Amino acid sequence: MSVDNTPTAGLIVIGNEVLSGRTRDRNIQFLGARLNAMGIGLGEARIIPDREDVIVAAVNECRAKYDYVFTTGGIGPTHDDITAACIAKAFGRDLVRDGDAVRMLRLHYTADEINEARLGMADVPEGARLIENPVSRAPGFQVENVFVMAGVPMIVEAMFDSLAPRLKGGPPVSSRTVSGFTSEGGMAEDLGELQARHPEVEIGSYPFVRSGRLGVSLVARSTDESKLDAVAEDLRALIRARGVEAIDGMRPEN
Amino acid sequence: MSVDNTPTAGLIVIGNEVLSGRTRDRNIQFLGARLNAMGIGLGEARIIPDREDVIVAAVNECRAKYDYVFTTGGIGPTHDDITAACIAKAFGRDLVRDGDAVRMLRLHYTADEINEARLGMADVPEGARLIENPVSRAPGFQVENVFVMAGVPMIVEAMFDSLAPRLKGGPPVSSRTVSGFTSEGGMAEDLGELQARHPEVEIGSYPFVRSGRLGVSLVARSTDESKLDAVAEDLRALIRARGVEAIDGMRPEN
Repeated sequence: MSVDNTPTAGLIVIGNEVLSGRTRDRNIQFLGARLNAMGIGLGEARIIPDREDVIVAAVNECRAKYDYVFTTGGIGPTHDDITAACIAKAFGRDLVRDGDAVRMLRLHYTADEINEARLGMADVPEGARLIENPVSRAPGFQVENVFVMAGVPMIVEAMFDSLAPRLKGGPPVSSRTVSGFTSEGGMAEDLGELQARHPEVEIGSYPFVRSGRLGVSLVARSTDESKLDAVAEDLRALIRARGVEAIDGMRPEN
Repeated sequence: MSVDNTPTAGLIVIGNEVLSGRTRDRNIQFLGARLNAMGIGLGEARIIPDREDVIVAAVNECRAKYDYVFTTGGIGPTHDDITAACIAKAFGRDLVRDGDAVRMLRLHYTADEINEARLGMADVPEGARLIENPVSRAPGFQVENVFVMAGVPMIVEAMFDSLAPRLKGGPPVSSRTVSGFTSEGGMAEDLGELQARHPEVEIGSYPFVRSGRLGVSLVARSTDESKLDAVAEDLRALIRARGVEAIDGMRPEN
């Protein structure tokens, strides 16, 4: 069940290093949480390799499907940084050197350091709007509803702050989480009935294991605070009925 | 660039809680690394919500596209666990109660604990082959080239061990990583030339920031160990030419 009337977003993580398990992605959780707090629902996150055909297809599919699309990765100076060229191709636009982007790079690098590879980071699809990067200057960019960011988490966080004012969120979605050291199977039927009685609240059940003990976090999400409070009270009662303490908040990290 | 002759896999992570940023996925990196070590290339990992239409479409797209498809999440006893029904629908099969799965559940739960919700975890698409779960017994299952697992990382790891003998890997892909505290922009041109000279080795460049210092990890991947050794030596030379130490191995966590 989805929460209605919420603008949607798709996230495309570009990076062989994430698919091969060498690197753990750190951007999906950050962007999911930030978008969620703005009333924008992340509808999908897709990790894809550094391959032109795959990137172009994913961008074109997602920009038709979601209100906003975000990409991370592949906008640096090296041969494997092909994202800008792929976005240009997806939109059928030329890749052009942006004067403002060149100025940003010249502020960051000395005359000795500036080389053709680094200047290449100023190449963006024609008509793109830059996204400032206070960390290392090389900007991201926006083409229509597609926002193109770096892959390094620190830079993604800074770029997202730069672009966030361009996004229009829906009513903010709030949540209540109640956890307990019990198994979800014992309360599954009651939980299903609670969900059926409150179709406007999305109720999720997430088991976890911590120090060998099985637990469950019950999460209710809605744009309606008072309904959430009522459901949260019912969730606490469900957990207490199992004879264990109902803990407000997220499950402990496992 | 992809490494040739490698069987491919797609991973579908089912879970609203990952998309909203409440939970950080821990399965993509584990499965990417394990598959990579077996000579199976993870071609895509897609995080999608608990929605029937989305799950069915993603499974049908991926099972046609990749040699193997793995799903995580949504096979528990509660109302939001809809994966098994979605897989049945994707294959046009009935959902049936599996006798062996019921026996596994009865070994795990007392007669008091067994209820209809828990028995529902024995419902699998007709003809599915079970995947054993030594942690909490409720099994995963395989239908043709699709492997359906739980979402809890500890159970995913156990289920993957159970199913791994059913997979056929390609030649194992090895890698060499060399890191240094320098920026990739200064060596981008040389790196591009090195990649052009060794098309059978995939060379990636991954910047990182650690304690405020910029660094880069250069990763070479190939099925040919001797070519990898030669390329790794060239990568070390590229980093040393920037006047910094070349560190073998992964970049430090940032």
